[in-house]
Amino acid sequence: MTTRDFEIANSVLVGDTADVYFHRTMTILRNEGMNPEVVMEFTPERGGVLGGINEVRSLLTKVLPETGREVWALEEGSAVNRKEVSLRIHAPYVSFGLYETAICGILASCTGWASAARECVEAAQGIPIVSFGARHVHPSVAGIMEYSAVVGGCVAPSSVLGARLTGLTPSGTMPHALVLIMGDTVRAIQAFDRHMPPETPRVALVDTFHDETEESLEVARVMREKLRGVRLDTPKERGGVTPALVQELRARLDQAGFSHVDIIVSGGMTPDRVREFVETESPVNVFGVGSYISSAPSNNFTADIHEIEGRPAAKRGRIPGITQNGRLGRVL
Amino acid sequence: MTTRDFEIANSVLVGDTADVYFHRTMTILRNEGMNPEVVMEFTPERGGVLGGINEVRSLLTKVLPETGREVWALEEGSAVNRKEVSLRIHAPYVSFGLYETAICGILASCTGWASAARECVEAAQGIPIVSFGARHVHPSVAGIMEYSAVVGGCVAPSSVLGARLTGLTPSGTMPHALVLIMGDTVRAIQAFDRHMPPETPRVALVDTFHDETEESLEVARVMREKLRGVRLDTPKERGGVTPALVQELRARLDQAGFSHVDIIVSGGMTPDRVREFVETESPVNVFGVGSYISSAPSNNFTADIHEIEGRPAAKRGRIPGITQNGRLGRVL
Amino acid sequence: MTTRDFEIANSVLVGDTADVYFHRTMTILRNEGMNPEVVMEFTPERGGVLGGINEVRSLLTKVLPETGREVWALEEGSAVNRKEVSLRIHAPYVSFGLYETAICGILASCTGWASAARECVEAAQGIPIVSFGARHVHPSVAGIMEYSAVVGGCVAPSSVLGARLTGLTPSGTMPHALVLIMGDTVRAIQAFDRHMPPETPRVALVDTFHDETEESLEVARVMREKLRGVRLDTPKERGGVTPALVQELRARLDQAGFSHVDIIVSGGMTPDRVREFVETESPVNVFGVGSYISSAPSNNFTADIHEIEGRPAAKRGRIPGITQNGRLGRVL
Amino acid sequence: MTTRDFEIANSVLVGDTADVYFHRTMTILRNEGMNPEVVMEFTPERGGVLGGINEVRSLLTKVLPETGREVWALEEGSAVNRKEVSLRIHAPYVSFGLYETAICGILASCTGWASAARECVEAAQGIPIVSFGARHVHPSVAGIMEYSAVVGGCVAPSSVLGARLTGLTPSGTMPHALVLIMGDTVRAIQAFDRHMPPETPRVALVDTFHDETEESLEVARVMREKLRGVRLDTPKERGGVTPALVQELRARLDQAGFSHVDIIVSGGMTPDRVREFVETESPVNVFGVGSYISSAPSNNFTADIHEIEGRPAAKRGRIPGITQNGRLGRVL
Amino acid sequence: MTTRDFEIANSVLVGDTADVYFHRTMTILRNEGMNPEVVMEFTPERGGVLGGINEVRSLLTKVLPETGREVWALEEGSAVNRKEVSLRIHAPYVSFGLYETAICGILASCTGWASAARECVEAAQGIPIVSFGARHVHPSVAGIMEYSAVVGGCVAPSSVLGARLTGLTPSGTMPHALVLIMGDTVRAIQAFDRHMPPETPRVALVDTFHDETEESLEVARVMREKLRGVRLDTPKERGGVTPALVQELRARLDQAGFSHVDIIVSGGMTPDRVREFVETESPVNVFGVGSYISSAPSNNFTADIHEIEGRPAAKRGRIPGITQNGRLGRVL
Amino acid sequence: MTTRDFEIANSVLVGDTADVYFHRTMTILRNEGMNPEVVMEFTPERGGVLGGINEVRSLLTKVLPETGREVWALEEGSAVNRKEVSLRIHAPYVSFGLYETAICGILASCTGWASAARECVEAAQGIPIVSFGARHVHPSVAGIMEYSAVVGGCVAPSSVLGARLTGLTPSGTMPHALVLIMGDTVRAIQAFDRHMPPETPRVALVDTFHDETEESLEVARVMREKLRGVRLDTPKERGGVTPALVQELRARLDQAGFSHVDIIVSGGMTPDRVREFVETESPVNVFGVGSYISSAPSNNFTADIHEIEGRPAAKRGRIPGITQNGRLGRVL
Repeated sequence: MTTRDFEIANSVLVGDTADVYFHRTMTILRNEGMNPEVVMEFTPERGGVLGGINEVRSLLTKVLPETGREVWALEEGSAVNRKEVSLRIHAPYVSFGLYETAICGILASCTGWASAARECVEAAQGIPIVSFGARHVHPSVAGIMEYSAVVGGCVAPSSVLGARLTGLTPSGTMPHALVLIMGDTVRAIQAFDRHMPPETPRVALVDTFHDETEESLEVARVMREKLRGVRLDTPKERGGVTPALVQELRARLDQAGFSHVDIIVSGGMTPDRVREFVETESPVNVFGVGSYISSAPSNNFTADIHEIEGRPAAKRGRIPGITQNGRLGRVL
Repeated sequence: MTTRDFEIANSVLVGDTADVYFHRTMTILRNEGMNPEVVMEFTPERGGVLGGINEVRSLLTKVLPETGREVWALEEGSAVNRKEVSLRIHAPYVSFGLYETAICGILASCTGWASAARECVEAAQGIPIVSFGARHVHPSVAGIMEYSAVVGGCVAPSSVLGARLTGLTPSGTMPHALVLIMGDTVRAIQAFDRHMPPETPRVALVDTFHDETEESLEVARVMREKLRGVRLDTPKERGGVTPALVQELRARLDQAGFSHVDIIVSGGMTPDRVREFVETESPVNVFGVGSYISSAPSNNFTADIHEIEGRPAAKRGRIPGITQNGRLGRVL
Repeated sequence: MTTRDFEIANSVLVGDTADVYFHRTMTILRNEGMNPEVVMEFTPERGGVLGGINEVRSLLTKVLPETGREVWALEEGSAVNRKEVSLRIHAPYVSFGLYETAICGILASCTGWASAARECVEAAQGIPIVSFGARHVHPSVAGIMEYSAVVGGCVAPSSVLGARLTGLTPSGTMPHALVLIMGDTVRAIQAFDRHMPPETPRVALVDTFHDETEESLEVARVMREKLRGVRLDTPKERGGVTPALVQELRARLDQAGFSHVDIIVSGGMTPDRVREFVETESPVNVFGVGSYISSAPSNNFTADIHEIEGRPAAKRGRIPGITQNGRLGRVL
Repeated sequence: MTTRDFEIANSVLVGDTADVYFHRTMTILRNEGMNPEVVMEFTPERGGVLGGINEVRSLLTKVLPETGREVWALEEGSAVNRKEVSLRIHAPYVSFGLYETAICGILASCTGWASAARECVEAAQGIPIVSFGARHVHPSVAGIMEYSAVVGGCVAPSSVLGARLTGLTPSGTMPHALVLIMGDTVRAIQAFDRHMPPETPRVALVDTFHDETEESLEVARVMREKLRGVRLDTPKERGGVTPALVQELRARLDQAGFSHVDIIVSGGMTPDRVREFVETESPVNVFGVGSYISSAPSNNFTADIHEIEGRPAAKRGRIPGITQNGRLGRVL
Repeated sequence: MTTRDFEIANSVLVGDTADVYFHRTMTILRNEGMNPEVVMEFTPERGGVLGGINEVRSLLTKVLPETGREVWALEEGSAVNRKEVSLRIHAPYVSFGLYETAICGILASCTGWASAARECVEAAQGIPIVSFGARHVHPSVAGIMEYSAVVGGCVAPSSVLGARLTGLTPSGTMPHALVLIMGDTVRAIQAFDRHMPPETPRVALVDTFHDETEESLEVARVMREKLRGVRLDTPKERGGVTPALVQELRARLDQAGFSHVDIIVSGGMTPDRVREFVETESPVNVFGVGSYISSAPSNNFTADIHEIEGRPAAKRGRIPGITQNGRLGRVL
Repeated sequence: MTTRDFEIANSVLVGDTADVYFHRTMTILRNEGMNPEVVMEFTPERGGVLGGINEVRSLLTKVLPETGREVWALEEGSAVNRKEVSLRIHAPYVSFGLYETAICGILASCTGWASAARECVEAAQGIPIVSFGARHVHPSVAGIMEYSAVVGGCVAPSSVLGARLTGLTPSGTMPHALVLIMGDTVRAIQAFDRHMPPETPRVALVDTFHDETEESLEVARVMREKLRGVRLDTPKERGGVTPALVQELRARLDQAGFSHVDIIVSGGMTPDRVREFVETESPVNVFGVGSYISSAPSNNFTADIHEIEGRPAAKRGRIPGITQNGRLGRVL
């Protein structure tokens, strides 16, 4: 992942999202006239795929003094081991102490999302994964969640903001709401076709009213070569999407002469369920993954001071002095 | 939880955080001249404590037409069952269809946080719980996460923004960084005492350099009646905080005449670990809970149309028509 | 279960189905001039519902001498405990020794079937169970299997022979083959209606071509009051029948004014799956259970001599002398 | 297994063992004047060893028209995979539709028995297995069960009918009843020896009165070279037969000069227990296996129409059109 | 258990069994001229039945000064909780510091043995338990192990030394060696009868050559009223002793008129196996328990100083000052 | 392990530790004038490391007649398989029958201890293990337990008697009692240094008052090159010793210039916990293992007569005649 710049919200810059005790610490140090140069290292609780580093770099660019600072980090999207130093800041403490909460939070959430995406990507063995989870997280982080999913290997986001942050075209078909309002899947895809620009792929959602294979064939018979794909999103109440359903749909589409129509599968996908399709060689063209990525648990980061004014230091339980890690590169 | 208003970010209002297919749906319906009145219901995947309803209400106030709309909901902070209708919107579809992604996302995240907080609160059987997890989520949601933790029963947030949203005083002691920079726990609490207003409680973090019982006694001997409490945050590398440690510390503090000093426990707390302290009657005064609340998995919400222009409707797998739920109250 | 007579196959009467060593034993004893009066007791390996006793009685009636015999047994269909004496024969050994294989075999198979049926009946808590498993056992025992299922509590068999043995009307709808050949579910039920006598209930199989709710409504709209029920037999490839599907179908039928139409559920039903429907109060009217009953494991019976010419006897591991069991009644 | 002909019971031929709905289907189609040519395929639920095909072929020979029919099948006794097409009938539907219940039932039961037998045979790694389970199934299927056990690899049946169907000599020793009646194991084997033709092997059952090793030595001392073997059938109440018992018995027989005496083991044998003897190199000469084979669960078969009048067809969940399987051979 | 005196081995008194660092500590303190009065408390790792206290008291009587000492303890054989203070020594440290290793060791081993015995006794619900485990521990502790088993509730030891320490008559029958050498169980019990004093109960071991029920009846027929009991010790190779075997033996003895003959069961007995006999109401008269008691894991004791010269003291992790325990009684 | 002689306690030689039935057997055989020459073989219940053979040999040397005896055994400390003959005695029965209890007991206990020690040694992959468990067994076997631990691979015992039996220097540091009495860890090690001969290594126990790393550095700063090591024995109440603690302590010692100071780890060590340190490459120099070795379960031995006066013999369940084992060597 190449470096890119992020806009940093004002509430972060003024420290509103910081734990109150950092504000107190700033006051105390200022009053005591202390501002030592320290080295702080950030390490994750578990291994995974590092996310959030580019956003943290954008934040630090804004707050650290231009001289007398040094920031080292692993690259966005690279593998990171349990307890491996992923970020090292060398600067006057008062210039960045207030942002410890925010830096840890960005790294924790983004690394959690990127790692979960990577698990799905690895399970899919080459079949593309699209991020479909915007609806399962608070909208304030929907964009950065999708950006992190792409860092982890997803090929496309589904939200407008995710598209803007990643520079990719957003992926998506149509909601069940459209089909219900149009009253018929065929009518829905025809309306879609009438009003969407030609470059938007025609992909029909085919489980709203009838059996999936039936709706697929009806849609294909009407749209013919213009139909790019069908999306299966069968609800749990009907057993969810199964490998056997995909195999049967592929056979029926092929028998009817629609081999060009892709099959997109979504609904409760996890690495285990993706693997099930891959291992049974079920002919899925694209997987849509939602909450497995968007509600992935954070990978908590710990921030520790390891040097104060050039001398090794550390609290109990941590090893004083800078931790060697040849994989770090200087980013500021 | 009484109703309160939330500011809604512009990116949400313009639909940037929406899945792209909702934008497409809006275009299609507009071009087709369709805008039916629909009833949409929102239901959670699991039971828990409902969060996010106040924020959703603030969003809907901004976007729904003033007449011809009806919104029913459960109260913020009330218990909600698996698949129970928690929100019902009755309005022209085009006025709110674009916000399905955001509404589901707000409810999913906030209900996840509030439910996790409630689990801790119930485990603690009356001992207060403070939200300490701001550092484990992206700062863009740190404030709303803390607000939701308070909805679930926490007595205080730790971030400035969380404090503003909840109207409570933020809780916090001091970071390890301050103690390390001051070079000594006693010196750190003395500096804290010098520069903090009298109403800020003096609570020392006592595991930075020495054994926790030793640091506690040193701090107490210097601060005497002014010391409000000590916080134990022993790292995993030293076995974490255990019930036996709390019992021993209480005994040593009491033997030395410091029965007025509270013991605050934090670090990897979960309902199970909280229960362990409660069941062994370990004298904890306050628990600080971090990532159990802040990285709680979302409780995914499903949005389903159940009526179109007054007629029952539903996709396969869902029951057409309005679902009866006497617990709903009208909020708009 | 009242006593009834069974026809005994000639191959059993001539001993063709006996283990060869019983033939040898008959030869040896005859040549030695021995024919002691013995008491033989039959006990099951596990608890359950006793089956096969009526058929065994019919066999013994044919082979035991009219005088000097005494047969005691538990009643067909009564509960039997592990190792409880269920049958006791007191007669000259040569008159029945050859039939030990057949008697044990009848009791083992029939008790296995009756016990499995009872488990389903108990799980269903009053909802009727129909035996649908003839297709999963060899036709030579299809009839007696269905008779045993009725002994265990099923309300009807599905085969003609099962109906003859139990004196009940056979239950059944239509096969998928008929629907496929007619090319349409509606056409199939209409043909059924045309050619079946009025007393045969009109029950449509509704999962052949389209979604189950859709086919059900189509069929109901055409047949109206004449439609007695619909049968759901969704294949595993489509997730099987789920409680949510039954609930939705009921709601859609009711909304369309077809509350009189019953819902029959079949396909891989077991006591656990039946319980799932019962516990979620899913409105099933009849369950069809197949291989859980028809391939139930035999409950093996052991035959032991406990008295020879009036003296207690037994092989090692068994207790000599007649075993007391006040629940036995004299049947011959 | 070479092809052989089976007698088909009249109750099967007249359809008495069929599900009643097939009778109804025949009536409807006849009245509608429909009799399309269809292709029906039969597939098992699990992998195993195919049984029953020869009997099904005998049935089809009797009912299908001599021209215009085509039947393809895997060979009796060959391995079959989960869901693999094992039988394909191409004929006018009305000529065989009535027999779907019987055909599925024959294949399900026989494949279950043959597969269980094969598991034991494979566990025994060359030590012969004899079918001893006639006493654990209904006598109406005792013969065909034993035939299927031989299809799966057993070397001999124990019943007279099983012997007739397989063309093998039935195997067996003597029942406990004979020993009890004779009052002494030595006297029993001597009587056996007096009255049995010389070609019947002298095998004594040695656990009726005394310890197995003791009875074996007593019998061997009296019978000497005429003794072919001893059978251990120790009841569960005495711990069953163990590898250590077989090893000790072999050692004691050899020390006494009776190395020519075989050891036959029976009583609750399963593949796992057989493997235990094999892995401890316990010198068993023959295993007798009973209920593991005779109450093996059926391997349910599904019958699906895949072509009607030359056009691909299938119900939902199945793939339309003939399924390729190069292993099938034409049998009619 | 009433107090009794134990002889203390010289190697213990001179400190040979002590950890070497206690010798060093004695030297250092002597050279430093230090001998503070201390309070040391001993607590077990798990709950159980306290053993070894009487032996420890005997040791302390020998080494503590007659004045200025105070020893408090729970009673031998009483229940003790996890971490409960079981022994408290108040004396000049140099007078007993050397014996910390021995005191902890005595308490650990004896409490382990007594607790295991109690588990068996509770499982047996009134049926007496005899200690048979001398052969599974080093002879240097065989006597004290048996004494501890009696503390835990066993009714008799089996060794001569165990008998001397407990003041009970040792229990025992005859070894297999005697039966093998005499060549016959009947001859063995007859020789036993000839040479043993009349007060020694005649109990025959009945599993050496023949089946247990057979040997029992042979012995009973010869010894008649003189036979007190038979002992079943069936080896694992024959399946061990089972409840069914005991039931059968009881029935056969009673049928033959030997209701006065007791049944003693031994061989691999554990609380679980004892419970199996009790729950099936198998008529066992006495259980012999061996290695479950004699190789019970030690219940490790911790020795902690809680007061030095009247001031509370403790190492980290323990609470300073005397621990209240109203159940302690003064023993010295 | 080379052969060595053991002193045998008088209570063993006079048979006080024997089961009483052996005394009776001796009386009976003497009165009957029987003293056959027998072969008795001893086999363990599980595989492991053989212990106790040297002590048994010393016992047999004292009791067997000098001529007409033959004793074969595996070597002390060699691996032994489940049920492998480890000791074979060929001698007149009356000369050693009384000692069966003692011989089995010695082998059972010592083999249990040696095997547990070996498991730790293997887990430690070259890092030395010291036996620290004297405090967890009765002092009467503390010495022989430590001898057996050395047989299993430990490098040193901790007790004086263990040292005498093994000919090794006992290992040990100082007890918590000394540190508490001296009131300070530094003062304790200084006193130790003053009064101990120069060859005794200076090893400080560093977890009594402060954090382990802090006490270690204080001690090292005072003792400098004279400090040989520090011992970590952190109590469970403080989380026990963890790999992270060892890593941190090593780093802090090295940073302060004390790379020559060894780290000794003890407290609840088991093979699993030792492996955890080894796998994380935590720089431990010595492990102290206590109750895992000293309360290891006995490995019960069975004694069986296999020959009487030259003829094969055995009780039921065992194979008559001498068992071949080429690994046995003649020891008497």
